[in-house]
Order: sequence, then C-alpha cells, then structure tokens
Amino acid sequence: MAFTTTIARAQDPLPSWNDFPAKQSIITFVEKVTKPGSPHFVPVPERIATFDNDGTLWCEQPLPVQAFFAFDRVKTLAPKHPEWKTQEPFASVLKGDYKAALGGGDRAILELFMATHAGMTTAEFEQIVRDWIATAKHPKTGKLYTEMVYQPMLELLAYLRANGFKNFIVSGGGIEFMRPWAEKVYGIPPEQVVGSSIKTEFGMRDGKPVLTRLPELNFNDDKGGKPVGINQHIGRRPIAAFGNSTGDKEMLEYTQAGSGARFELLVLHDDAVREYAYGPALGLPNVTLGAFTQALYDQAQKDGWTVVSMKNDWKRIFAFEK
Amino acid sequence: MAFTTTIARAQDPLPSWNDFPAKQSIITFVEKVTKPGSPHFVPVPERIATFDNDGTLWCEQPLPVQAFFAFDRVKTLAPKHPEWKTQEPFASVLKGDYKAALGGGDRAILELFMATHAGMTTAEFEQIVRDWIATAKHPKTGKLYTEMVYQPMLELLAYLRANGFKNFIVSGGGIEFMRPWAEKVYGIPPEQVVGSSIKTEFGMRDGKPVLTRLPELNFNDDKGGKPVGINQHIGRRPIAAFGNSTGDKEMLEYTQAGSGARFELLVLHDDAVREYAYGPALGLPNVTLGAFTQALYDQAQKDGWTVVSMKNDWKRIFAFEK
Repeated sequence: MAFTTTIARAQDPLPSWNDFPAKQSIITFVEKVTKPGSPHFVPVPERIATFDNDGTLWCEQPLPVQAFFAFDRVKTLAPKHPEWKTQEPFASVLKGDYKAALGGGDRAILELFMATHAGMTTAEFEQIVRDWIATAKHPKTGKLYTEMVYQPMLELLAYLRANGFKNFIVSGGGIEFMRPWAEKVYGIPPEQVVGSSIKTEFGMRDGKPVLTRLPELNFNDDKGGKPVGINQHIGRRPIAAFGNSTGDKEMLEYTQAGSGARFELLVLHDDAVREYAYGPALGLPNVTLGAFTQALYDQAQKDGWTVVSMKNDWKRIFAFEK
Repeated sequence: MAFTTTIARAQDPLPSWNDFPAKQSIITFVEKVTKPGSPHFVPVPERIATFDNDGTLWCEQPLPVQAFFAFDRVKTLAPKHPEWKTQEPFASVLKGDYKAALGGGDRAILELFMATHAGMTTAEFEQIVRDWIATAKHPKTGKLYTEMVYQPMLELLAYLRANGFKNFIVSGGGIEFMRPWAEKVYGIPPEQVVGSSIKTEFGMRDGKPVLTRLPELNFNDDKGGKPVGINQHIGRRPIAAFGNSTGDKEMLEYTQAGSGARFELLVLHDDAVREYAYGPALGLPNVTLGAFTQALYDQAQKDGWTVVSMKNDWKRIFAFEK
C-alpha cells in the first residue's frame, strides 16, 4: 500500500514541465476540481477543456501548417489551372513567394483556401489531408508536422484525460483539416474537434450519398467565434481553456466567466533557439495569426491567467529533442 | 460460472420489445459489431449511433413539443407585445387556434420561432427551457413531456451505450431546446446533441461575456441537413441510425453508404390506442412533420431497413403504462 503511494507520487504527470509556478498552477487546479468533497469539485461530465491548436498544441511558424497544405495543393492542381500562372495569389504561390501570396489580404487568402479546400467530397478531402500529412515536412526542422507538436502539451492532454476531462480542440483552423490526424496525434477524436468550416451539401453521386465541399465559408472559429463554436458544438462552458494569441482571448474570457473553479492558460513563444520567438508582448514583430499582444499579456496578469514561457517552463518542446 | 451465464442470458436488454424480427435485428447487429474477431467487428470509437428525436424518441403528436413551447412563450410575452392581438401568426396562437397559427406557412412558423427563441442570452434561454419543461404537460395524457418518451427506445439507448456505442441526437428540432433535458431523460450529454439552430453572437454585457441569440436561422438540421450536421458535429459516419419520417431518409442513406456492418431503423406510428396512428404509409393523413410516406416504406423494404410497428413490436410505449 505504502509502496503503491510512493510509486504514484513519483510518477510526475508533466515530466517535460519545469517545477515552476505554471506547472504548479495546472496541478493545483486539477487536484482542486477532482477531489471528492472539495468545495471546488466538478463532476466528470462537466470537466470540459478546450485547446487552441496553432501555436498552442503545435508549431505555427514560419506559417500555419494549413497554409503550407494550401500551397502544396496549388502546386498539385496547377496543371489543371494554367490561368494560375498569372493570377494572384496563385502566381506567387507557384513562384514560391509565400509572403506575397498571403500579403494580398483576406480576400486573396479566402480565394486560395476555397480553390484548394472545396470542390471535392468530404471523404476525398479527408484522404487528401491524410496523404499530405503523412509526408509533408516542416521547412526548418525537416520533421513531419505531426512531430512538431509540443511534448509538454501532449502530457497536459493526457494528464487531463486521466483526470476525467474531455479535451476539445477549438481552433481557427479548418475542422476537416485537423480531424484526420488529431485522434492519433492528440488522442482527440473527430467529434471533439471544433474549427472553421466551409459549407457542405448532401447529394447523390453514382447512386451513393455524398457530402460535397462548397467554396463558401460556413463558420469562422476565431476570436468571438470561439465561444460561439464552443456553444454550438459542446453546449457546455469549458472549465479550462488554453491558447496563445488574441484569437483565443474571448474563449478564455468565456471560460473564466463561468461559476466555480476555472483555469486559463496562454503559451508565450519566447524560445528563438528551440522553437520561435514572436509577438508584440516580447517587443517582437506581430507575425501572421500569432499575435501575443502587450494588451493580452496585461489582461492575463490582471485576470490571473497562467502564462507559460516556452523557454523557461518547458524542459523539452518537441519529443524529438534529446 | 454457469450460473452467471444463465443470469446474463436471462437479463433481456430490451424487455419492452416483443420477440419479433425488429428486436432480433437490433440484437443481431449489436452482437455482430461488438464480437472481437468477428469480420464485422467495429472498434469502440467508431460505434456512433444517431437518433432523430421527435417521433423517434418521444411523442410528436398532436404537435411537436417545441411548437407548444413556442405557443406558451407567445402567451407569456404577449403583455409586452400588444400588437400581437391582431398580428398573425401570434393572434391565432393567443386565441388558441394552433392549427391556424401553423397554417400560415414556413414564413409564419419562422416568425413565431424567432419571436420566442431569440433576443436573450444562451444562458437565459436554457433557464426558460428548463423552467418550461419541468411543468408543461401533454394535452392528451396530462403527463410531463419528458414522460412522453418511448420506453423501448430508452432501453435501446442503454443497450447500445452498454455495448460501447456513443449515442447522438440528430434532430430537426432546436439544439438548445433539447440540451437542457436530454442528458437527464436520454443519458445523452449536450455535446452529443445535434439540431437546428439560430445564430448567436459573442459580446459583453455588464462586463461579462455572453452569447446572445439572434433572430436569424443558422442551420436547418433536417433531410439533407442531417448528414451535413452529422459531418459537422461528429465528423464520423454513424454505423446505426434511427428515425421515423422522410426528414430522416438522408441520414439513413448516409449511414448505410458506409463500409462494414450498418443498421437503419424507422419507427412506424400505427398505434392509435396507446399513442397515435398517422402517415401516408398507413393510408392516414400526412400530418405536420411526421410523414412516413409510402415511398419511404418501400425504400425501407428495398434497402433492408428495420421498420418497427409500435403496435406490434412494443409491449409498452410509455413507462407510465401499467
């Protein structure tokens, strides 16, 4: 009996986290809400945790992974679209000038995504994503994108799951872009993935029912859209939320506004050696989609949100580090 | 050991079902997909079952329950809307002429729903539904609506759950109208409810983040919308689907089109004594929302869908029957 207790205590649930306040704040919260008889106890069905994906669970630099996917799709589809050679944003993509391709504003980005993400069935798109993610490599590390996930966050997901939490992804990224690999990589099944989406339409093809992906935005799961998506998909307010940018602010606010014990965490990208350092809160440029602003940092301090320094709080960032 | 086996066999998982082919078809399917080593074995995470609600899990006559909710809301809100006394469809509702109120077509029905389902926060709406469902009674039986659920279907839900299935509601009814009571009544948590919805908007009220319900349709979860809603919320194709009307046809087709063992079932309302008898397949009138057409019946025969006769297959329909 005593032996078992020693073993259990010796098993650190978060071995890639340094024993600093961020780690302690997580453990304190989890113990508080799971201890029977505690005034902060939360029943298992209500233990909902929501996670942003890009920059929170995996690397979003030098660009969000889904952008690389879109670029590769443009290259694959280019032979069928000779007009793309001179038509932006496709021409820039084909020249390898990704900065120019994304510099054309929201409308150009939307056009790029619709041209590469719509027009096929949902089953076909799933297969396209599966095939791509199985081989596509990060431009700096040469690792598979699915290896560019944060080891400390994988441990956190497992720790929460072991404590009766249901983990959801709530991402501005495409819901159907994440589902094909999220279960294997994060242990998060498709029905626990919330994301942005395009419209789909039911119809018959060769006598078989199919869902066709239409080039029309259905839902933008970012900023104020995140609480909307959470309400739509989950129907319960999370008791814990994890993000890394201004796109996650409303999700954390919405989580905190519930009654009872709550937990909010932001990942700060301040490790230029092992990953990337970016964001105005560090006096660094406001890169695409990854803005950790000074205002967000101030709000975290004021509202008691945990801020994780990747440089200081994480012993390892990626599993492939030795 | 032998004793245990006898006990297990003696425990009929579907005691309110007569031992007719419909019951046998359910048990055969469940045993087939859950038996390790069986060529039809389906891993637990893929055991997704989807259920229509109105007319499949609970009574939808003389009108869908949500219509009675809307009528009661009109009466409650009427003092603030003196113009409703002469304005349709509200005037008919206030006179108690529900048939006329619903007879004004889709636009009148939409107006009725927006006036009664929008304009408050999601938390306020949840409380309104909770309060109403706690006391509102069925006009014929005088029972609570939550007692008007089909006992054989409750047993089926429990049987599937005990065999590793995840049960989802996929209903044309309002998602936020079902969630407040579905967990208690059906054992189906909010995140496993898919339904029609209106748009919501994130904002701050008195410094607190809230979601406000807007008078604008977001999603119509009926007919071809059901596979769309399933893909959006669940992201996996069900292996079993249960319905009772033409609104469920596409959901059953989509379910059946997957590979491996599949199961589809339609409930036929043919018991005028214990419940209601309706639908063209019985040569009876095509009542609102509850159409079991002859074409649907023929398709069920052709495609091997199980058709449940409430009159013959169910020993008991409601738990309150003796």
